[in-house]
Amino acid sequence: MNFASDNTTGAAEEILAAIAAANQGAAMPYGNDGLTRKVEKKIAEVFEAEAAVFLLATGTASNALALSVMTPPFGAVYCQAEAHMNVDECGAPEFYTGGAKLLPLEGADGKITVADLENALSRTNNGVHAVQPAAITLTQATEAGTVYTVDEVKAVTAVARKAGLGVHMDGARFANAVQSLGCAPADITWRAGVDVLSFGATKNGALAAEAVVIFEPALAKDFAFRRKRGGHLFSKMRFIAAQWDAYLHDGRWLHWAGHANAMAVRLATGLMKVPGARFSYPVEANELFVVLPGPVIDGLKKDGFEFYLWTASQGETLIRLITAFNTRSADVDAFLKAALNHAEAYDGGHDGGHDGGEAQA
Amino acid sequence: MNFASDNTTGAAEEILAAIAAANQGAAMPYGNDGLTRKVEKKIAEVFEAEAAVFLLATGTASNALALSVMTPPFGAVYCQAEAHMNVDECGAPEFYTGGAKLLPLEGADGKITVADLENALSRTNNGVHAVQPAAITLTQATEAGTVYTVDEVKAVTAVARKAGLGVHMDGARFANAVQSLGCAPADITWRAGVDVLSFGATKNGALAAEAVVIFEPALAKDFAFRRKRGGHLFSKMRFIAAQWDAYLHDGRWLHWAGHANAMAVRLATGLMKVPGARFSYPVEANELFVVLPGPVIDGLKKDGFEFYLWTASQGETLIRLITAFNTRSADVDAFLKAALNHAEAYDGGHDGGHDGGEAQA
Amino acid sequence: MNFASDNTTGAAEEILAAIAAANQGAAMPYGNDGLTRKVEKKIAEVFEAEAAVFLLATGTASNALALSVMTPPFGAVYCQAEAHMNVDECGAPEFYTGGAKLLPLEGADGKITVADLENALSRTNNGVHAVQPAAITLTQATEAGTVYTVDEVKAVTAVARKAGLGVHMDGARFANAVQSLGCAPADITWRAGVDVLSFGATKNGALAAEAVVIFEPALAKDFAFRRKRGGHLFSKMRFIAAQWDAYLHDGRWLHWAGHANAMAVRLATGLMKVPGARFSYPVEANELFVVLPGPVIDGLKKDGFEFYLWTASQGETLIRLITAFNTRSADVDAFLKAALNHAEAYDGGHDGGHDGGEAQA
Amino acid sequence: MNFASDNTTGAAEEILAAIAAANQGAAMPYGNDGLTRKVEKKIAEVFEAEAAVFLLATGTASNALALSVMTPPFGAVYCQAEAHMNVDECGAPEFYTGGAKLLPLEGADGKITVADLENALSRTNNGVHAVQPAAITLTQATEAGTVYTVDEVKAVTAVARKAGLGVHMDGARFANAVQSLGCAPADITWRAGVDVLSFGATKNGALAAEAVVIFEPALAKDFAFRRKRGGHLFSKMRFIAAQWDAYLHDGRWLHWAGHANAMAVRLATGLMKVPGARFSYPVEANELFVVLPGPVIDGLKKDGFEFYLWTASQGETLIRLITAFNTRSADVDAFLKAALNHAEAYDGGHDGGHDGGEAQA
Repeated sequence: MNFASDNTTGAAEEILAAIAAANQGAAMPYGNDGLTRKVEKKIAEVFEAEAAVFLLATGTASNALALSVMTPPFGAVYCQAEAHMNVDECGAPEFYTGGAKLLPLEGADGKITVADLENALSRTNNGVHAVQPAAITLTQATEAGTVYTVDEVKAVTAVARKAGLGVHMDGARFANAVQSLGCAPADITWRAGVDVLSFGATKNGALAAEAVVIFEPALAKDFAFRRKRGGHLFSKMRFIAAQWDAYLHDGRWLHWAGHANAMAVRLATGLMKVPGARFSYPVEANELFVVLPGPVIDGLKKDGFEFYLWTASQGETLIRLITAFNTRSADVDAFLKAALNHAEAYDGGHDGGHDGGEAQA
Repeated sequence: MNFASDNTTGAAEEILAAIAAANQGAAMPYGNDGLTRKVEKKIAEVFEAEAAVFLLATGTASNALALSVMTPPFGAVYCQAEAHMNVDECGAPEFYTGGAKLLPLEGADGKITVADLENALSRTNNGVHAVQPAAITLTQATEAGTVYTVDEVKAVTAVARKAGLGVHMDGARFANAVQSLGCAPADITWRAGVDVLSFGATKNGALAAEAVVIFEPALAKDFAFRRKRGGHLFSKMRFIAAQWDAYLHDGRWLHWAGHANAMAVRLATGLMKVPGARFSYPVEANELFVVLPGPVIDGLKKDGFEFYLWTASQGETLIRLITAFNTRSADVDAFLKAALNHAEAYDGGHDGGHDGGEAQA
Repeated sequence: MNFASDNTTGAAEEILAAIAAANQGAAMPYGNDGLTRKVEKKIAEVFEAEAAVFLLATGTASNALALSVMTPPFGAVYCQAEAHMNVDECGAPEFYTGGAKLLPLEGADGKITVADLENALSRTNNGVHAVQPAAITLTQATEAGTVYTVDEVKAVTAVARKAGLGVHMDGARFANAVQSLGCAPADITWRAGVDVLSFGATKNGALAAEAVVIFEPALAKDFAFRRKRGGHLFSKMRFIAAQWDAYLHDGRWLHWAGHANAMAVRLATGLMKVPGARFSYPVEANELFVVLPGPVIDGLKKDGFEFYLWTASQGETLIRLITAFNTRSADVDAFLKAALNHAEAYDGGHDGGHDGGEAQA
Repeated sequence: MNFASDNTTGAAEEILAAIAAANQGAAMPYGNDGLTRKVEKKIAEVFEAEAAVFLLATGTASNALALSVMTPPFGAVYCQAEAHMNVDECGAPEFYTGGAKLLPLEGADGKITVADLENALSRTNNGVHAVQPAAITLTQATEAGTVYTVDEVKAVTAVARKAGLGVHMDGARFANAVQSLGCAPADITWRAGVDVLSFGATKNGALAAEAVVIFEPALAKDFAFRRKRGGHLFSKMRFIAAQWDAYLHDGRWLHWAGHANAMAVRLATGLMKVPGARFSYPVEANELFVVLPGPVIDGLKKDGFEFYLWTASQGETLIRLITAFNTRSADVDAFLKAALNHAEAYDGGHDGGHDGGEAQA
């Protein structure tokens, strides 16, 4: 029973079936096959836009390549301090942009705020001596498991636009965000001021399928060359396209994300009943960050549940739980039952009542 | 009936079956799963060596990353002028090495010669002003469809070693070369002086599976970071590992390459009977380069056979034919029959006898 | 009367005379002349070390090239948040290192603290996903006009050493620091754990003369190639060497720095008498950061004194004053007299007594 | 008596005097001083154009930065095979462009020909797999000591323009070329299709002074950031500006180049009388490449004359002689007298008459 990451899951059966089905006869390589063309169009249609679409296979490549067309090497890209690009990609953005600088903003609940961005921009009057503000990247859903509302995205992109910045959205968990918001994909992207989206499918049931969706045509010009140069143009591209074809078929992508989100709610609701549990952030997608008493965490680990530990600022221990398209409700219930048992054994009376914190279940 | 490239083929059924079989339960991401560990070991065993093995998904990434650990940014890498890295990767080697310089050598039959390399090295006494010789890369089988013998590799690597150069082998069609030579994989790699091999499976039946095999331990130190930074560390790595597991199982990789090579011989043998046909290079693996009379080429194209045209130096037209693990002998025979028919229609007596050139069938 | 920067000063007469004297006959280019060789040796002798010395002409080049031999492209370099390299070099360190990441530490009084560094290092257990700690850079004298003591440097470098980090010192104002400390140059560099020093002369009377001094031989291997590749190998190198020759002659460099420091003390001592003046940092070299009442600042500007304004955290206005090798005491006195006059006019009784803050005069 | 390079000369007295004269009072740093502004304008006036001008101090920086605004990282830049940028700058162009690829063209007499360029461009139909043709660079005067005529430049740039390439001119010896042609600087640059010029002064009497002159406004946008980022923005810029001010004053730059060219003619005329001498290229600027009998070369070396040896294609030995703004005619005559003496001693009758080859004196 693994709540460590949506990367530990395998792929959905429908995805594997589509790969097998695509394995018929010869097809032009490097994305010049019919299925790739069809899927590129299909993705643009999901966004009701004339977007340029580029298929990829890893989120790191998708994000780093997206930034590479949005900033010169001497540019600055604002990001939330804990953004995957800033802390978890071994410098991929710096590599692909030729050395641009990520400038971290603290934000709140994993989101960049208007105040943060305005404050940072106000300090950039250093002429040729400083890196030049070029772009901003928002993670949706965020690393904290929260989701920017349409209005929040609009407010931040308005500031960015005024300052001449391009707007990137890291959508490794975009499906979870859209499902959570219940809006059209266009509403939270280009209609809200986003220029380029890294649209992930891998964490939500695909084997290895990502796409960069470029809404601003001028930014699409160089992408194909940079993708090739980065070693990310697949010769047998039809097998990535096939995954997308299956993923988008009949709303599966939102259905799968909906299941993951529902499992997160089920976890959150149950954890609120565990004495001493406190949520660090609202639970709005498929990630939960929850402070638990040490003995409860130890017990869960001993039971074989897998999840990551975080260090909370006050020295408490935080755990991160992630649900996925294929998380079983029985596993969630087993986890909750075990947590309650450990809490009782540890003496629930320790500090009295439960504390559901900010979780919105 | 497609002879355009071994990239136009799909994947072998055994490969897809292995992917499906790997899709059981949760697995640690980013290559920390058991299957990846097992396959890394298995690949090293194929080479009877304590090699460091890194799984990848594209040949471009494999080659460019391999070079990135073999040259400083101010280094020079000698390659055959038509090497894929020099002309077909949109500058990926320059990107990954931070701007190292590929220095092309003409060679013969697609191979770098000792004389070429010695001559080039003799002109490098320019101190700090010139890029510094750092490595050499050999393509095995070559872009010309030829195969370096063990002695040829040893002769070139001896010169390289003396000059302090690292030796890389681009093995996008390594299986075809090994099957053609009938030697042990170790004999044509580390025992012959190769430090790093890009070991390809994609062109020979895999969906997307490559590996960098590092025989010189000191060169392995940084590889994992560079792979991650390039966006080439797959989260669901088990699906690349599964392909390798199936590929190496019970000698399948050599069996598949053997089939491709045999189909190339069948093509070559038949084409020798076509009046006006002349081979540009010996046929030693699964690629054929053959000059044909224009009307024959036109006729074949009109029949729907797919292949690429090359411009020969004398203004003649050359066609490239590639066979693969799944090329059917019936398709080969249909191609040969059509070629003979078109040649007869065009008047076989045009310039008399056939000319099988250098082809060794 | 210009207190804006030590960059606004010209060059010392002795420096220009040395350049003219070096202009005799032909000399081998690119640093292969006798004067350059002599000066490289002379600089090593200043540090009582077998150091490798490379002459340069700008501080940006000196710093960025120094880092480029201390970190791989996937490395992290710890710096104080306000370090010139982090905020004032338009991404030069990222450019020269191939995209390494500067990780800012807050520190105190412009200095990195042991606690800061230890805390940052304790958060680096992210395997291949994070940039890899590679180096630390200390600015001496700091951007705040303070000076690390020998013990402070030793304490920080001990932590760095234990974590396997290289240690760089940005010595754009190294002369001012050494003069302030009264120690041997070796004591505050290699004997205190510094591997590479960017030794500046430009701000202290040279026309354009910098040197990278490498105490750790392994780090010197690639430097000459990187300098050339960056366009920083001067053909008529003797003219940079001549500046160094004059600069180091008979202790001039410390004499000049001593004058600049003395002028800073004279300014600080005088400013303590200005009602409302408050120093942001101890004055330990040739830079002063002092909060002054708005009307005083306005008055000084109107009088034609040149200096930069800073925004203090509490919304107050801070001014930065820099003294140089050729600052005249009469100019300092004129500045002080004007400041006092403006303060009196503005009503010295506004908030009573003077407040000399932390300034150590 | 040094004919090794125009880099071995010192600086003209007028240049040093201008530096001394600029050393008055404080001046805004980083090129924000009046003298720099004046000189930028003055250089534009030399070209009768609204050019953007950027001062620099080395030719390597000038060339590499110029290319960096003319090609994307995945671009190709055509150059003559022996161009300094291709063989003598340790990969600086690759570094500054982020890994663009220099594609060498053979040309004739050191010049790129229309046929060469057209042939190369005709082979670039490889889609996303190849680097993308972006620019061409011409060296004027060439590495062979020849000079492109206005018509030759126009013919090549017309082909470049049609293919969408930017045109760069490496003018390390631009003064020698202009003086040789007797045309207006504008005629051989923007009026002939050049977009960006690297305008050198260092080899012709300056201490360290170069300028990039951008005629195409769109290319100027990023230059200042790239210059800073490369570490090439000098804080005490006035001292580079001062050199330019003196260099351009009253036609000095052409006067000095004229002297160097005249000394080259004097050398060429004299060498034609040396039995066995044969010129490899026409002598059109200040460089001579001449085949001499081995004993003559040995004798000259023994006499203490300094020059570089080249290997001619036929195994003969070639010497390169370079004259400069300050070459004395007495030194030229001494060289010629010695050469004649050695030739006579060696037995002038060896192979009969003299052979002045292609030299146009």
